[in-house]
Amino acid sequence: MGGSFALALKAGRQVSSVVGWSRTPASARQALELGVVDEVAGSASEAVREADVVLLAVPVASTGATLAAIAKALASDALCMDVGSTKADVVQAAREALGAQAAAFVPAHPIAGKEKAGVAHADAALYRGCRTILTPIPRLTDPLRVARARGLWESIGARVTEMDAAAHDDALAAVSHLPHLIAFAFMQAIATQPHAAQLLSLAGPGFRDFTRIAAGDPTLWRDVLLANGQAVAHHARAFRAELDRMEAAVSGGDAETLHRMIEEAS
Amino acid sequence: MGGSFALALKAGRQVSSVVGWSRTPASARQALELGVVDEVAGSASEAVREADVVLLAVPVASTGATLAAIAKALASDALCMDVGSTKADVVQAAREALGAQAAAFVPAHPIAGKEKAGVAHADAALYRGCRTILTPIPRLTDPLRVARARGLWESIGARVTEMDAAAHDDALAAVSHLPHLIAFAFMQAIATQPHAAQLLSLAGPGFRDFTRIAAGDPTLWRDVLLANGQAVAHHARAFRAELDRMEAAVSGGDAETLHRMIEEAS
Repeated sequence: MGGSFALALKAGRQVSSVVGWSRTPASARQALELGVVDEVAGSASEAVREADVVLLAVPVASTGATLAAIAKALASDALCMDVGSTKADVVQAAREALGAQAAAFVPAHPIAGKEKAGVAHADAALYRGCRTILTPIPRLTDPLRVARARGLWESIGARVTEMDAAAHDDALAAVSHLPHLIAFAFMQAIATQPHAAQLLSLAGPGFRDFTRIAAGDPTLWRDVLLANGQAVAHHARAFRAELDRMEAAVSGGDAETLHRMIEEAS
Repeated sequence: MGGSFALALKAGRQVSSVVGWSRTPASARQALELGVVDEVAGSASEAVREADVVLLAVPVASTGATLAAIAKALASDALCMDVGSTKADVVQAAREALGAQAAAFVPAHPIAGKEKAGVAHADAALYRGCRTILTPIPRLTDPLRVARARGLWESIGARVTEMDAAAHDDALAAVSHLPHLIAFAFMQAIATQPHAAQLLSLAGPGFRDFTRIAAGDPTLWRDVLLANGQAVAHHARAFRAELDRMEAAVSGGDAETLHRMIEEAS
């Protein structure tokens, strides 16, 4: 996510130089070799010194610690953003780690569909046409920073929407986090069957589409599900209720109800 | 499915002439206009008269009635196949409708990923690389017909496997029918939310992939789920057990279990 953002800004000549840092030295080296960053810093704090724009691309549970590590080094006019899939927890972490400096922080979530994590998959076109949600912190995030954030994302092709963090988390629980939870559970159910390999050999293109999101990064998705557990559980109950209704129609041979439900879903 | 088969056989010069019949006259006219068929018959029975190869492309619950309608007109050396997504019910229907003539019937299931039904979407390349399962009826289907069926499907690029009908239905319940049931129930759960339109406006590429199969044809999928309800219910129980485990890990904040389950699924 971070690599794609850097490449896109460089391609659009929005930045003159990109400094990278990763807690995995091999990733940082690879970013340098691929030209995603122009320079690798020795620490997160060193990386953000004198930066106009700072983007955190870390699992959401690491946002607080990362912000705390860079707080003192942040330039007074810097714009700081994240790309996490949950926002209420990120807002809370920013309040705690940054205090009044949270004025510089614009929580962001580009809804990009990339299962393959890592700088090797960085793609300058990833955010083209991609909906990106900003959730400024009420009475804290600086409106000028929000305008700059919007401008940057739009300059690389994103369609920007502003929302309340809680509304974001509820909506994303429904259309992203729950589908991931279901796909993970479904793949577990297949993989633990005695004849899993034979089953998978009969899987067609529909199966591939349905389960593609199960290939998501385990650390990223563990954090998202833990951070947004209540909203996910709420939508999971609605899903289970519909699954109950459909299964009852199947076992009861209720062709009419089944047809109507499939038609509505379709 | 039927139109794609006809186009593929014509493209490979495996047939000299195709006669079509549909219970929907508009579909038959369209097939003629698009060159999918060379001729439209006045009835199913008339369509199969003197045919060397007969392909039924009907919802599985209509297989028995369609076979009964054509039984008397089937040439003694004809090869007759279906393309249904369930096989035990089709085998049973063939036994009842055809009696000893079931020697000519080779139950077939090409696992093609086309959500859009109808002759307008017929595609000569649909079966290229597509796994196709034949489930000959033990001690009834003529082995020479099975060999001809295999040759025809292979000539249009399909990868042919032979299986027992019950094993087919169990496997397809796991990798196709249950995913469809889940996708239908999930879309129902989204569509019945008060702010469904806003939720859908935030859906990304992962959502689109996950729910693509929910766009399946209602009559086709109603019949499949009713025909294979027991096997689907069996695999649905395994899925629900994994969903329970994952939800418990989320609500209990069990990061380690959650990470391991996502990693395995991924």
